[in-house]
Amino acid sequence: ASQSHRQSALDHQAQLTKPAGSLGQLEQLAVTLASLQQTNTPAADRVSIAVFAADHGVCAEGISLFPQEVTGQMIANFVTGGAAISVMARELNAQLEVINLGTATPPPLTDGVIDEQIAPGTANLAEQAAMCDAQLQQALLAGDKAARRAADKGSQLFIAGEMGIGNTTSASALACALLGAAPAALAGPGTGLDSNGVQRKVTVIERALARHGDDPAPLTCLASLGGFEIAAIAGAFIGCAVRGVPVLVDGFIVSVAALAAVRLRPELTDWLLYAHRSQEPGHRLVLDALNAEPLLDLGMRLGEGSGAAVAVPLLRSACALHNHMATFADAGVSNSGND
Amino acid sequence: ASQSHRQSALDHQAQLTKPAGSLGQLEQLAVTLASLQQTNTPAADRVSIAVFAADHGVCAEGISLFPQEVTGQMIANFVTGGAAISVMARELNAQLEVINLGTATPPPLTDGVIDEQIAPGTANLAEQAAMCDAQLQQALLAGDKAARRAADKGSQLFIAGEMGIGNTTSASALACALLGAAPAALAGPGTGLDSNGVQRKVTVIERALARHGDDPAPLTCLASLGGFEIAAIAGAFIGCAVRGVPVLVDGFIVSVAALAAVRLRPELTDWLLYAHRSQEPGHRLVLDALNAEPLLDLGMRLGEGSGAAVAVPLLRSACALHNHMATFADAGVSNSGND
Repeated sequence: ASQSHRQSALDHQAQLTKPAGSLGQLEQLAVTLASLQQTNTPAADRVSIAVFAADHGVCAEGISLFPQEVTGQMIANFVTGGAAISVMARELNAQLEVINLGTATPPPLTDGVIDEQIAPGTANLAEQAAMCDAQLQQALLAGDKAARRAADKGSQLFIAGEMGIGNTTSASALACALLGAAPAALAGPGTGLDSNGVQRKVTVIERALARHGDDPAPLTCLASLGGFEIAAIAGAFIGCAVRGVPVLVDGFIVSVAALAAVRLRPELTDWLLYAHRSQEPGHRLVLDALNAEPLLDLGMRLGEGSGAAVAVPLLRSACALHNHMATFADAGVSNSGND
Repeated sequence: ASQSHRQSALDHQAQLTKPAGSLGQLEQLAVTLASLQQTNTPAADRVSIAVFAADHGVCAEGISLFPQEVTGQMIANFVTGGAAISVMARELNAQLEVINLGTATPPPLTDGVIDEQIAPGTANLAEQAAMCDAQLQQALLAGDKAARRAADKGSQLFIAGEMGIGNTTSASALACALLGAAPAALAGPGTGLDSNGVQRKVTVIERALARHGDDPAPLTCLASLGGFEIAAIAGAFIGCAVRGVPVLVDGFIVSVAALAAVRLRPELTDWLLYAHRSQEPGHRLVLDALNAEPLLDLGMRLGEGSGAAVAVPLLRSACALHNHMATFADAGVSNSGND
């Protein structure tokens, strides 16, 4: 991030034909992007979206309403264009990648899917570590490769999405371990559990944490309680920061991946913008831990990166206003008595 | 609004490849637009933005940081393309109209400005009625004409913006009279007053309300405490509802105009969508009185219709998702055990 570009952007905002500060968070967004992109004309035109998909052994505990085969089916839906994130990628004219890190049931088609399969899903984290260290390294590397592809394409913004039946259980357990929080404070309905279902999820996470112990080391937590897609997202975010690509963080699961990544590499913090507050109740705690002020709060809880995609036009508006508004001098408009 | 289209839209949402309800307010937006537009494929592609500008005699009381000549200067900035709403209109490919209802200082250019001048600003509402009944009717009619132009163009969404130095004082006084609220609960910093300035504004509004009395009749309140642009916006919203054009309500001042319009024509309520919660503190009370749940809360307080313009992509995303996502059956994706 460039302090000189940040200051130039702040000075420019003060000259635009509007009361100082009257564009609120849009002003801060433009200034932040100018600083991260080291430019006087920040932009979010070239957007890369990478959806990471994987299955979760913890589904054996009956913690999701959807059958596990849906992970593979949705991989096909992503590439054939029918999923929410596919529709949004078209609307945004964004690059969409779908990365398969391993499913219990093979996707019904593989054309257009990037193959990074590690195993047909993680182990059941209620009973043993979700993955071994070698698998964790594979997942982190798969994420880093996605970041490298985005940087190579000149992307001005990176969005990670996730798909994996059962992954709110994994993300909740991981957040509990990273934050030292109680499962009841993090576990939520996910795709639509009733209160009995949420209670079952809490019990499963309690068993996982009893096995895991209280080790908050991010790599240990990721291997013990994470998912392949969650670890890959952490790897992708670290890879984006290293390569100078700003990240727009999606909802609950992606935010937990971001939390793990920030614990691993605190210098990542500056590169993360936050799109929305999910309806999943644990998201609030995770956002607070990240000092995040998300742009939207629309009661979304779909995942796939959809919340981040819906927020992209706000970044584009912020940039357009920053780049194209007239100054008081250019427009011949009198400024306030304050200035 | 069509109940059959509403039900069809709800049924369609339940078939899309996502957990039920997981797109939150975006689902409700698509369903509402389908119902208002009486269609299975709601859209917010053709957007009309009308910015109503006028001056306010209450500026004699020193309630704004900006000199009154800025109203006319900004009219020129709107049509030459340098203002925030001009930039946003281009980004959205929206129609932008600028309507001059009367300024203290003539705008430095008039090309492209729609001339609906009533007088060189209202009278000082602290001392006398802001306008006479004939002027109020002229303003309401100017708004209705804008609604008719939008309907004639086949607009799928109407946005009203406002410009008028001093108009947060008028809007706050008007809201107090309509709601029976205390000036201190409504008056805010506007374009940037400090606490002494806000206190002066409260005193001015108290004088205006002492003169006005406690008559909450909307036409009486509009003439006594309103502005030409505020009355025009009320007229435009009533005209949109009559002609079947949904409205996206901007910030504090436009919301007060909407409140006056709803008090005048309660059947207008269904046609109003709410874009954002302004940083102006009185907006919360006005939104509560309208049972409004705005989409955005970004600390904006610029006016011009800018907050509504920034929210348009959310409506477009909601429509694109509704119209283009695959169904469970089409995509071969298994639904949850719930369904």
